[in-house]
Amino acid sequence: MNKYITELIGTFFLVFTIGCTVVGGAGTTAPLAIGAALMVMVFAGGHISGAHYNPAVTLGIWMRGKIETKYVAGYVISQIVGAVLAALAVEYLKAGVQVVPMNLPVLPALLAEFLFTFALVFVVLNTATAKGTAGNSFYGLAIGFTVMAGAYAVGGISGGVFNPAVAVGISIMGLSAWSSIWIYLLANFAGGAVAAVAFKAVNPGDN
Amino acid sequence: MNKYITELIGTFFLVFTIGCTVVGGAGTTAPLAIGAALMVMVFAGGHISGAHYNPAVTLGIWMRGKIETKYVAGYVISQIVGAVLAALAVEYLKAGVQVVPMNLPVLPALLAEFLFTFALVFVVLNTATAKGTAGNSFYGLAIGFTVMAGAYAVGGISGGVFNPAVAVGISIMGLSAWSSIWIYLLANFAGGAVAAVAFKAVNPGDN
Amino acid sequence: MNKYITELIGTFFLVFTIGCTVVGGAGTTAPLAIGAALMVMVFAGGHISGAHYNPAVTLGIWMRGKIETKYVAGYVISQIVGAVLAALAVEYLKAGVQVVPMNLPVLPALLAEFLFTFALVFVVLNTATAKGTAGNSFYGLAIGFTVMAGAYAVGGISGGVFNPAVAVGISIMGLSAWSSIWIYLLANFAGGAVAAVAFKAVNPGDN
Amino acid sequence: MNKYITELIGTFFLVFTIGCTVVGGAGTTAPLAIGAALMVMVFAGGHISGAHYNPAVTLGIWMRGKIETKYVAGYVISQIVGAVLAALAVEYLKAGVQVVPMNLPVLPALLAEFLFTFALVFVVLNTATAKGTAGNSFYGLAIGFTVMAGAYAVGGISGGVFNPAVAVGISIMGLSAWSSIWIYLLANFAGGAVAAVAFKAVNPGDN
Repeated sequence: MNKYITELIGTFFLVFTIGCTVVGGAGTTAPLAIGAALMVMVFAGGHISGAHYNPAVTLGIWMRGKIETKYVAGYVISQIVGAVLAALAVEYLKAGVQVVPMNLPVLPALLAEFLFTFALVFVVLNTATAKGTAGNSFYGLAIGFTVMAGAYAVGGISGGVFNPAVAVGISIMGLSAWSSIWIYLLANFAGGAVAAVAFKAVNPGDN
Repeated sequence: MNKYITELIGTFFLVFTIGCTVVGGAGTTAPLAIGAALMVMVFAGGHISGAHYNPAVTLGIWMRGKIETKYVAGYVISQIVGAVLAALAVEYLKAGVQVVPMNLPVLPALLAEFLFTFALVFVVLNTATAKGTAGNSFYGLAIGFTVMAGAYAVGGISGGVFNPAVAVGISIMGLSAWSSIWIYLLANFAGGAVAAVAFKAVNPGDN
Repeated sequence: MNKYITELIGTFFLVFTIGCTVVGGAGTTAPLAIGAALMVMVFAGGHISGAHYNPAVTLGIWMRGKIETKYVAGYVISQIVGAVLAALAVEYLKAGVQVVPMNLPVLPALLAEFLFTFALVFVVLNTATAKGTAGNSFYGLAIGFTVMAGAYAVGGISGGVFNPAVAVGISIMGLSAWSSIWIYLLANFAGGAVAAVAFKAVNPGDN
Repeated sequence: MNKYITELIGTFFLVFTIGCTVVGGAGTTAPLAIGAALMVMVFAGGHISGAHYNPAVTLGIWMRGKIETKYVAGYVISQIVGAVLAALAVEYLKAGVQVVPMNLPVLPALLAEFLFTFALVFVVLNTATAKGTAGNSFYGLAIGFTVMAGAYAVGGISGGVFNPAVAVGISIMGLSAWSSIWIYLLANFAGGAVAAVAFKAVNPGDN
């Protein structure tokens, strides 16, 4: 249960920071704030739940064998509940702010989301679960700043989501249309799965 | 006594950086500077006083049992003295700069301050006092960048204070009205207290 | 083979982030995103391939004796393939965006590229291969943020490349003219070689 | 001799980054670039020379007893030579750019420079020489980002120098008038000396 609460808290603050910095117009510092929010929550919760805060990360870690199958559903539900609560909090704080959903170009958005979700889960697996980096103090920085780099790089193309729970949150907030959510679900889970395969390929002795 | 001096120095530079970057108009880099100032002072003073620099953090750490009751008053007084001195230094350096106090919306400001003070104290307890992260090199980065993320996220709603000593400092500088200070005191102490409860809930074997 | 795949992945995301943030006009946050992309890939791949992602770094590490000669060609080919794939991905995502190649002033560009490639390889050798810093958790931060500092400092003079594989990538994307690529090749390899000499001079007992 | 070369290289890149980002107009990212340049050079050279790159830091470390008296002159000369060479490189790269020296208000500039040089040397002594933080991986981040925070906070008042070698460099570049250099020398050495006294006061068992 403490793992689920941690996943809920971490995902809440990730989605809450996204909503507060993007609803009403994302400034140039929004990705820095968002990457930092993820970083600090990863550093705070890593020793408790592993600090996934992202169903695509949970998929990658499950494929890599570092989370038991019986916990997967609880993790994903906790992440989505955290995202929903964050979206409601943002809607309260930003009541009256006009929000126009992004108009996503399908193929470019799929590619952008796939590539950076791959990068994110590849970084998570290598910095937070690999034997070769055990005991390091940089995993949160690496994970949070992957999302920051990705949001700066492809935020203008796909929104820079890389996370199905975030996709739910921004759909509730109206930043993205519900009819587009399949783009995130497909690209993010595919990116996470391919990252797990790539991790195993490049870490042959680490299973 | 060396703990009190350290708390005074750290809180001084936090509030001094806030004042210098916000009086006369906060640019988009103010939260980065403020988060960095907190980070470096946490790294510098952590081994001496624990580097609270914030009465809400002291409350959370006291509830978690990592500061003796007899030191609490001295910590809080040192933090407030540091904040007052910083405010006076800012007033000297920015003499003649017109300052208009923020107009805080009560309920949104209470919620924003509560949530990010919770996040801050939750991060402090997990990265600087938990068994599961003992010996890490990231606690200052995590703590400082929580404030940075929060200032970017809710600075436009509540000022992004998360700290009763900072609330005193910005009230002296005229950035916030004295009649609003109860918002910070209530929300910040409540956030710190709830974070301590949450920390205990998710770290069951760590008391 | 796992080393080559890692070099390809890391260089891909470095060049992909460069292209996405610079094609169509580099904002003030482009160097932050680019430095972060390099940082996270260094943290993710360092334990596998050493995380060079740069033929000038490979040259410096080869001169310092930390990569066997038989692997050098494979590293450089993997880096260039990663850069080419990234350039193609950027061209797809940014189709229709007008790109004008930089007009490089020869001697200033040579000097700027030489100096910061020297800095980059000097930082790599000291933070990722020196006995005196063994086991640290900061090598990725140091390496990535050297490129960030260099891109802010001399990006307006030379483009802030510091990496022959990046030079290939930006030439494909049209950000730099093919007729200018010798500037990067000459200055970057010279910077890497001199950095290896300097490293040996200042680390006399570390061979 | 390897210590002196390292001090020269590190100070060169600090002053070179300052000149490149400030001559022709400092953008909002100049302090980030400057702090990063210092950070990476501290991480690269710390195990060789202690990575002072600043005569005020050398003074503080000498008072704290962590550098032998016979090396002090060589350190300071190396730092100044590095700063002079950097200023010449900037003058070559930025030839033709109009530079107007700052008009420093004497007392505010003295206070601002004193306070943040104190903060810088206090952070250096606590993160790079204290028993209580031995073996950490954050000293470069803490030191570099102190300068970043200070440059954002008081750059508009005093230029954000905190370093007599930097003062020489910016005087050569024309960013500051030679007639003002006593402000930096006085405030920076005083800040470093007081920081050493404060360090000893708050670390009683660490001599």
